[in-house]
Amino acid sequence: MRYIIIGAVAGGASTAARLRRLDEHAEIIIFEKGEYISYANCGLPYYIGEVITDRNKLFVQTAASFNQRFNIDVRVLTEVTGIDPGKKTVTAENQVTGDVYEETYDKLVLSPGAGPIRPPLPGIGNDGIFTLRNVSDTDYIKKYIYHKQAKKAVVVGGGFIGLEMAENLHGLGLDVTIIEMGNQVMAPLDFPLAAIVQQHIRSLGVHLYLNNAVTGFEQTDGGLAVNLKSGDVLDADIVILSIGVRPDTRLAAGAGLKIGEGRGIYVNEYLQTSNPDIYAVGDAIEFENPITGQAMVTYLAGPANKQGRICANNIVMGNVQQYHGSINTAIVQVFGMTVGTAGTASKHLKAAGIKHTVSTTSSGSHAGYFPGAKQMTIQVAFSPDNGRLYNAQVAGFDGADKRLDILSSVIKRNGTIDELVEFEHAYAPPYSSAKDPVNMAGFVAENILLGRLNIFYWDETNKIGEDDLLLDVRSPEEYRAGYIGGAINIPIDELRGRMDELSTQKNIYIYCEAGLRGYLAQRILRQSGFNNVYNLSGGYRLWKNCTAETEQNTIEVVC
Amino acid sequence: MRYIIIGAVAGGASTAARLRRLDEHAEIIIFEKGEYISYANCGLPYYIGEVITDRNKLFVQTAASFNQRFNIDVRVLTEVTGIDPGKKTVTAENQVTGDVYEETYDKLVLSPGAGPIRPPLPGIGNDGIFTLRNVSDTDYIKKYIYHKQAKKAVVVGGGFIGLEMAENLHGLGLDVTIIEMGNQVMAPLDFPLAAIVQQHIRSLGVHLYLNNAVTGFEQTDGGLAVNLKSGDVLDADIVILSIGVRPDTRLAAGAGLKIGEGRGIYVNEYLQTSNPDIYAVGDAIEFENPITGQAMVTYLAGPANKQGRICANNIVMGNVQQYHGSINTAIVQVFGMTVGTAGTASKHLKAAGIKHTVSTTSSGSHAGYFPGAKQMTIQVAFSPDNGRLYNAQVAGFDGADKRLDILSSVIKRNGTIDELVEFEHAYAPPYSSAKDPVNMAGFVAENILLGRLNIFYWDETNKIGEDDLLLDVRSPEEYRAGYIGGAINIPIDELRGRMDELSTQKNIYIYCEAGLRGYLAQRILRQSGFNNVYNLSGGYRLWKNCTAETEQNTIEVVC
Repeated sequence: MRYIIIGAVAGGASTAARLRRLDEHAEIIIFEKGEYISYANCGLPYYIGEVITDRNKLFVQTAASFNQRFNIDVRVLTEVTGIDPGKKTVTAENQVTGDVYEETYDKLVLSPGAGPIRPPLPGIGNDGIFTLRNVSDTDYIKKYIYHKQAKKAVVVGGGFIGLEMAENLHGLGLDVTIIEMGNQVMAPLDFPLAAIVQQHIRSLGVHLYLNNAVTGFEQTDGGLAVNLKSGDVLDADIVILSIGVRPDTRLAAGAGLKIGEGRGIYVNEYLQTSNPDIYAVGDAIEFENPITGQAMVTYLAGPANKQGRICANNIVMGNVQQYHGSINTAIVQVFGMTVGTAGTASKHLKAAGIKHTVSTTSSGSHAGYFPGAKQMTIQVAFSPDNGRLYNAQVAGFDGADKRLDILSSVIKRNGTIDELVEFEHAYAPPYSSAKDPVNMAGFVAENILLGRLNIFYWDETNKIGEDDLLLDVRSPEEYRAGYIGGAINIPIDELRGRMDELSTQKNIYIYCEAGLRGYLAQRILRQSGFNNVYNLSGGYRLWKNCTAETEQNTIEVVC
Repeated sequence: MRYIIIGAVAGGASTAARLRRLDEHAEIIIFEKGEYISYANCGLPYYIGEVITDRNKLFVQTAASFNQRFNIDVRVLTEVTGIDPGKKTVTAENQVTGDVYEETYDKLVLSPGAGPIRPPLPGIGNDGIFTLRNVSDTDYIKKYIYHKQAKKAVVVGGGFIGLEMAENLHGLGLDVTIIEMGNQVMAPLDFPLAAIVQQHIRSLGVHLYLNNAVTGFEQTDGGLAVNLKSGDVLDADIVILSIGVRPDTRLAAGAGLKIGEGRGIYVNEYLQTSNPDIYAVGDAIEFENPITGQAMVTYLAGPANKQGRICANNIVMGNVQQYHGSINTAIVQVFGMTVGTAGTASKHLKAAGIKHTVSTTSSGSHAGYFPGAKQMTIQVAFSPDNGRLYNAQVAGFDGADKRLDILSSVIKRNGTIDELVEFEHAYAPPYSSAKDPVNMAGFVAENILLGRLNIFYWDETNKIGEDDLLLDVRSPEEYRAGYIGGAINIPIDELRGRMDELSTQKNIYIYCEAGLRGYLAQRILRQSGFNNVYNLSGGYRLWKNCTAETEQNTIEVVC
């Protein structure tokens, strides 16, 4: 048997190693057009930021070690320029010698990845404008920062990699500005969670332009001028383009393989392309989103590695294992904050026509009485019919990654909010509370699902009319420090004694800081003749973050 | 409606609050024989250790705040001395005034908890010998340490609380000795994980006596002499008894309620005792272990809180929600190390006659190229028939709690190792690797389940005979630094070229440091005519910990 693999990073390297474990005697050739194989591409921003100081650490394997350990013929700096599925050959070009040659295969695996988008803007060819995909890009960026003694950076794109780059450049002491076309950073998140991140970014003195775009670049005496759609012009010593990536489907298309609706290489449930002897894995493939049923691509290392293992199993043993798709669990550290998502965001569920309810809770990372507890926000979206969990988004510090992982595991197996309620967490004071944040998210979702809690959302406060009542049940001190316009204050502990101040004829919209006291207030009122009572999901804290960001955006768009 | 609750800590307080949320107009009385309600009993060791410095933080609620928020009649320092289920009354005694009176109930909830065992040893009444259950005990211990300027502590019992006390006393600067009757600390763990903990404890200069017991105490000029079964006599300024706890079933038994085989108060799936108007929650109840099917009690805050919520639902709405039992997920910080378990340990599965396979893996807490990654050990036990996950044990530092929680959620819903394989974790370099430790545990378990990997265990190395081969596939440097007696060394990367040194007729027992290279070696050999090849689960690292502890124990028992 002769296996050829094109692309030697996450998906390709993982497929090759697994192929060898399953088939000791096959011939395995892996082509990589770059200089390096199996490198830590998720670590590149951190190497630029000098969080990772040893460049050697970026290499999980070298061509030599991979060959020695797995007996695999690794050909770096060799680009495959064509595939002939009829003859079952690939054409390869050695980038150093220029040699062009053919190799035959029994089974071929495509792992070409996705390439960064570099839009044809005026002046984009100027020095100092970079994209980041591989180790060579990283080396260029690092050298450029050092030699130019760069002081000002503009990061174009507020996605995961853009934010990681911003954090790392900020860490190096550069003055950083982020430009994002959308109305929020991190597109896979819903606005409220993005608002938390944005408030955090701004609080650290990083400049953030939303609803804006770069229209071009100009070389100046000092460096670069970055022209924005808004008319603003920013000075920059270095620009990082993190606008996004695009599946590299050229080879596949050239070979006549089917390209899907999601613009990725089409594969069936066995990761087999439209040609049965060609499989594909990684960022370039598309598959069905398990929640929306729509075709999608994903650019994540975890799924790529898992696909590699499944692909090799199917090649050697004959389509024995299905790939069940990815729920797009993703996380990023943003200036020390942890933010992530699993499943499909509410805005995308809406777009896909999937009915769902959103609930936001806020809990401590561990017992409040134990030092160091930090607040985290959890937003869940679930089916109002059967409680199936569609999405979880988490923003916080310590332990936010843990809760996201637990929620991801529930979404992955089509679990419901019952599992959040029953989840039996490992509790000791340094790790959690007697009721874990995941339990709390489940309890509140269950209360909503069973009709014990009616909620309203931060963007609905402006719909509260003159005939309605907005009721702040926090303490007078909290109220005085800031409240939602039009709200009256009756602290929760006084509510039972002051019910005569309220009319049972009105809609009552309650809020507290995070949602718990509001829920208690609602329980009291609903059992006392008040029929139309609603509690603000996420509380005043979430409302404040969201409205602050809405105002901020408006100002920035205008100016 | 009139609800009476006996016991105002975790389970009782949680039931009372939920009852109020569901029934605003009921009369709710809660009796607590101690001075405080709803205190943070899991925080008590940390208050003694001055990790928690503000005593007020120990109180989640006070009687006054609980009354104000929930309109609940809280009666502290009032012991319920009897229940008359026929008349539906309880007899209460005010510990301050001595008043004795009756109260009637419609529904009664028992949450008496479990009391610490204080064995009738000679001299146990001496000053300076304490158990720890509540805030008052904590105050006594704290004062005693301070006034006596205690320098030496003996902790009797190496369970979770014993180890937390040892850590906190050590943190205060005391010289600490732990005495444990069993052959390991932390009885819910299997020996290999306990061995990791023990090695860690010893490395910090804490004295640990296993297979030993206290036979009595004597007052000395300086403080206390603690006599051990082994003949040793230890000096101590203070002794903490953490031998265990026992469900407090006196009231229930006195009322004629059924006490179960597990020695706890019997409840049905609705948490209802043998009397339909009396429910019970918390440490005093027993229920069916979802894995073994046997009756058991558990002493954990998480389950108690969840039971409280379910119990209240069932009381108000009429047995609407089943309690599905606890899988005993538990965690503890031991001198900075994180150790925990979920499900039923291998030794207990064996005792229950449940066929299972154990596999141990070792992984970094996050990507090795990102600073600060720490190794963690994961042991899983699963069904060799269908892969159902029965148990997970984790020992490590950063992120060990996260992996335990994920594994707990799989065990809780009767999941299989497939879920570990498919688990889609949130990966960015600070949080995990492209393959999470949970994935790795799943991959290895799947390889075992599907027959791609044959393993042997650390305690089977002594069964390797002269006709067998023990093969160390680590590097020569690793081999020279220490190896298992009788092993020859062929580094993995030389194996393909040196196969002629091996006989296909022999059983070959392979090991490497943690298990991965051994697995690769086995794949190579099994596909090259070697049919009887086994890989050491957990590798040399686990073997070394375990054997070091076995030797240590033997020595300590002898001396």
